[in-house]
Amino acid sequence: MGTIDSTLISDELVDFLLYDVLDVTALCTLPAFAEHGRDTFDPWLRTCRKLAREVLFPAYRAMDAEPPQFVDGRVRVHPRMRAIWGELVSIGLIACARPVEVGGQALPMTIAAFANAYLMAGNLSAFCYAGLTTGAAHLIEAFGNAELKQTFMRPMYEGRYTGTMALTEPQAGSSLADITTRATPTPAGHHLIRGAKIFISGGDHDIAENVVHLVLARIEGAPLGSKGISLFAVPRERIEADKLVPNDVHVTGLIHKIGWRGLPSLALSFGDADDCHGWLVGAPNQGLRCMFQMMNEARIMVGTNAAATASVAYQEALRYALDRRQGRSVTAPDPTSAQVQLVEHADVRRMLLRQKAIVEGALCLIGTTARYADLAEHETDPQAKQSAKLVCDLLTPIAKTFPAEKGYEVNVLAVQIHGGYGYSSEYLPEALLRDQKLNSIHEGTTGIQSLDLLGRKVVAGGGAAFAALRDDVMRDLQRAREAGVESNVIDPLGTAFDCMAELTLALGSRGLQGDVDGMLSHANDYLDALSTVVNSWMWLKMVTAAAGRDSDFAKGLRQAALYWANTELPRVGVLAALCESAERSYLDLDPAWL
Amino acid sequence: MGTIDSTLISDELVDFLLYDVLDVTALCTLPAFAEHGRDTFDPWLRTCRKLAREVLFPAYRAMDAEPPQFVDGRVRVHPRMRAIWGELVSIGLIACARPVEVGGQALPMTIAAFANAYLMAGNLSAFCYAGLTTGAAHLIEAFGNAELKQTFMRPMYEGRYTGTMALTEPQAGSSLADITTRATPTPAGHHLIRGAKIFISGGDHDIAENVVHLVLARIEGAPLGSKGISLFAVPRERIEADKLVPNDVHVTGLIHKIGWRGLPSLALSFGDADDCHGWLVGAPNQGLRCMFQMMNEARIMVGTNAAATASVAYQEALRYALDRRQGRSVTAPDPTSAQVQLVEHADVRRMLLRQKAIVEGALCLIGTTARYADLAEHETDPQAKQSAKLVCDLLTPIAKTFPAEKGYEVNVLAVQIHGGYGYSSEYLPEALLRDQKLNSIHEGTTGIQSLDLLGRKVVAGGGAAFAALRDDVMRDLQRAREAGVESNVIDPLGTAFDCMAELTLALGSRGLQGDVDGMLSHANDYLDALSTVVNSWMWLKMVTAAAGRDSDFAKGLRQAALYWANTELPRVGVLAALCESAERSYLDLDPAWL
Repeated sequence: MGTIDSTLISDELVDFLLYDVLDVTALCTLPAFAEHGRDTFDPWLRTCRKLAREVLFPAYRAMDAEPPQFVDGRVRVHPRMRAIWGELVSIGLIACARPVEVGGQALPMTIAAFANAYLMAGNLSAFCYAGLTTGAAHLIEAFGNAELKQTFMRPMYEGRYTGTMALTEPQAGSSLADITTRATPTPAGHHLIRGAKIFISGGDHDIAENVVHLVLARIEGAPLGSKGISLFAVPRERIEADKLVPNDVHVTGLIHKIGWRGLPSLALSFGDADDCHGWLVGAPNQGLRCMFQMMNEARIMVGTNAAATASVAYQEALRYALDRRQGRSVTAPDPTSAQVQLVEHADVRRMLLRQKAIVEGALCLIGTTARYADLAEHETDPQAKQSAKLVCDLLTPIAKTFPAEKGYEVNVLAVQIHGGYGYSSEYLPEALLRDQKLNSIHEGTTGIQSLDLLGRKVVAGGGAAFAALRDDVMRDLQRAREAGVESNVIDPLGTAFDCMAELTLALGSRGLQGDVDGMLSHANDYLDALSTVVNSWMWLKMVTAAAGRDSDFAKGLRQAALYWANTELPRVGVLAALCESAERSYLDLDPAWL
Repeated sequence: MGTIDSTLISDELVDFLLYDVLDVTALCTLPAFAEHGRDTFDPWLRTCRKLAREVLFPAYRAMDAEPPQFVDGRVRVHPRMRAIWGELVSIGLIACARPVEVGGQALPMTIAAFANAYLMAGNLSAFCYAGLTTGAAHLIEAFGNAELKQTFMRPMYEGRYTGTMALTEPQAGSSLADITTRATPTPAGHHLIRGAKIFISGGDHDIAENVVHLVLARIEGAPLGSKGISLFAVPRERIEADKLVPNDVHVTGLIHKIGWRGLPSLALSFGDADDCHGWLVGAPNQGLRCMFQMMNEARIMVGTNAAATASVAYQEALRYALDRRQGRSVTAPDPTSAQVQLVEHADVRRMLLRQKAIVEGALCLIGTTARYADLAEHETDPQAKQSAKLVCDLLTPIAKTFPAEKGYEVNVLAVQIHGGYGYSSEYLPEALLRDQKLNSIHEGTTGIQSLDLLGRKVVAGGGAAFAALRDDVMRDLQRAREAGVESNVIDPLGTAFDCMAELTLALGSRGLQGDVDGMLSHANDYLDALSTVVNSWMWLKMVTAAAGRDSDFAKGLRQAALYWANTELPRVGVLAALCESAERSYLDLDPAWL
């Protein structure tokens, strides 16, 4: 039956990624991280691992089984969540990667991402109360004035308040340009907010004093479309005469999600009684720009969650395949012999190795992208900083989507490896499968990420972004050769990357010549192809760092790298040809034909 | 919000498949179907469509939300199920494809499969009480003596009793050779049964008088392994002195399934008090052979269910994409314009066309396979009969797995197209997604189907099976050319089929030379590749039948055929190269490396 202990993510792998592959201590030569070193990183990782395994994970099943309730206009979350929140706050999770000036620990994102991954793997809903609060507070830190920081950011970083992102509206969905929530200026300085939002995660609860919503709205008279959207801090309760009083924000519905069931997703109504105060964050009509500055972080967070959710499922499947005995080898079916471990069947080994190749590649990708993000923010050499920013931006839609889409496949395979038992809610894989599905939808669907990657990111800087990526891949190919990595891993990556480089040039030119449809029609295939190549690059980094080692761990890395190079890289040529062909079957499709 | 009406499956498509593509009325020249014609087929289809849409589908959500309860040792299913059962029985569903002598209507499987597809699409759990009963009664019809037919088959075909397949045991799972349930002969003629079974669908309920379990067990002293397994009819209650008395069969647990929630899946215990009577069906030790003669039918049923479950999801996604307006074209983002239908976005059209290519291809595949099954059973020309049997057997693992695996993708895409709403249980796609997942697991996992296809079916008859398939594909290619189908659909299929033919020969030879591991290591890729080609073949059949037509319907068929040829067939070469290479990354994997 189901278990309540799990390693969640392999510590050996994470340590290897951080210190051997990503050389994260090298970041400590930068002023921003000068106070840090392995002596501060390791204790943080230990704290988060312990909390994930001993506190968050044991509450996961209960929180999945008993989702929040909507009672008398307020949301009651699972009773275990209040204590968990206290623990998350007490270790300083919310501001861990923020500067010391705002109460943080100034940890690199690279470290925070892996530490967060354990917490998400343990209980993604529980973690996300903190993750959302960090995001909301960070927006005020970046764009708010001193008063807003004092009133809202501080109590959020301290864990007294929680935060949300209130972007989506029922009629607009992903199309933020179409939001209609209104903001009316008042002489007192605040705005009166009026409108409806939907899918607001953590939009109400009973675990902390207050909730601060970061709301997108239009100031009266603002331009139409995305250029007329402003950002506001709108608390559930506002302070009047040193007391918290209701701020005319109401829960109008609770969405019955299929996963992330420990975290309420709400429909909210602002200003039904025309008494909802909101405070402008940043300049008027710059709301989307402010929000987008946070989007990279949010997308890397989604990718981290996806990799983490896939990792738990892989760990469960691996344990099951080692524990469970069933059937015999096709070449030695003697019925008098004992049944063999599931893992002895070639197809089960295939599924497990595929899971490993995706999960560990995705974790390396998260770390790699987070490291570029750290450099993009804190590197002191302007050119290196700019280059890191370009590669970080380019990798971000991949770091969000590859773990979400291929991670989902890992979760499906975990159910499959469990056989009939996997189809039962007695075992974990089905719950993790439900959780994972959101990651291809929120923070920009896979379709939107594809357009972002091909339409914006790879052509950014007139080709500078792709060139910067290429430099780094070429450097790693050279390192791999020098380290003696086998050519059956190196060469296919070189070929596949060249193929993508040529394709990118061809598609970019097509766009420049005005054929945007022709450029973007196979954006989804482009994302798939480039993600496949990027995952091979991740595996190259890993086998290079493990070159010359003879441990089981190192052998496993080489086998997964080989699996990916042999079985997935050959798809790249096919996908590239498809993008290049600008095949028009669905572009030319008239919906009446469906 | 969610809807309670749906077409479930397109009537226009089904009529086209039956009468234009499959020419099902041609079956009526065979003696077995001589009483039939379109005048009997259409009323049956109408009856089932109406029942599916007006009775089964409206109960689907309620039955999903309120699964069966285990109360005082008995199972209570959803209260609506009793009335539904009455309706299914009253139309004569259970024996519809069985001969008139046993109370049936002697409908071809081809017709029954499509009629069943509507019922499954409407409410798969409700249908399956009937489907399982048909399967169990059919086993007794085929292998039981006159007394067993009278005692068990008759009341099952009449709907007074229901039936189950009780194969799986906790310690054996898919490995039927390892079952341990015992049968002890008695002087009275029956055996005493003792053992435990798991995952018994419909194993208890309160909708009919009795349940008859078709149980695999070992007669004492039988050989080890699969050669010592016998088949028994074991009723929940047996007849003594014209009354039903308990037969020592007990429900020991109810499995909390993630889908198919209207149908209980149980753990059963037989003979706790040594008073469980079972009656031998067929010869001793021939149980697996009897069961396997029904396996084709069961697998085609699973494939039908998978295609049906994908079809409902596709219909929901299509409606949503037409109704919902969101965002604007990437090339015309004017914010003053109205938002466009979701279907206007290229990536949404891609997802819908992909769904169509899979769903309609899968339905055509089910019909094609069922037609071969009808010929394999009822064709009067021995050579044609044998050829149909070979192709039917070869196609069966594909007809089971392609709809299950690719249908799951259709279900995932339906969630994706619904965006955030798709992640909520207010909408149907998430429920259908849960339902679909079982189809890659039960009646033989995808891994087992792969081994069956490559290890047994394509090499059957020393190559005769693949040759028979080849003849039929070549005949259809020729017909397509004659009908003027465009070469961009014909030629890629010809090339891909040749590629598979070469590969099959190469792998077959490898097996003959004793390298069974090398032959089978990429069985999963082989199944994927051959399924992809077979689906192209289905689309060729459809566009050939629609050649020269200018309707929206015909244009949609051509577009889907083109989509599949352009985007999926190119994968075949890559997969074939992988099978041919016998790449050993997971074969050589030591589990300790994971």
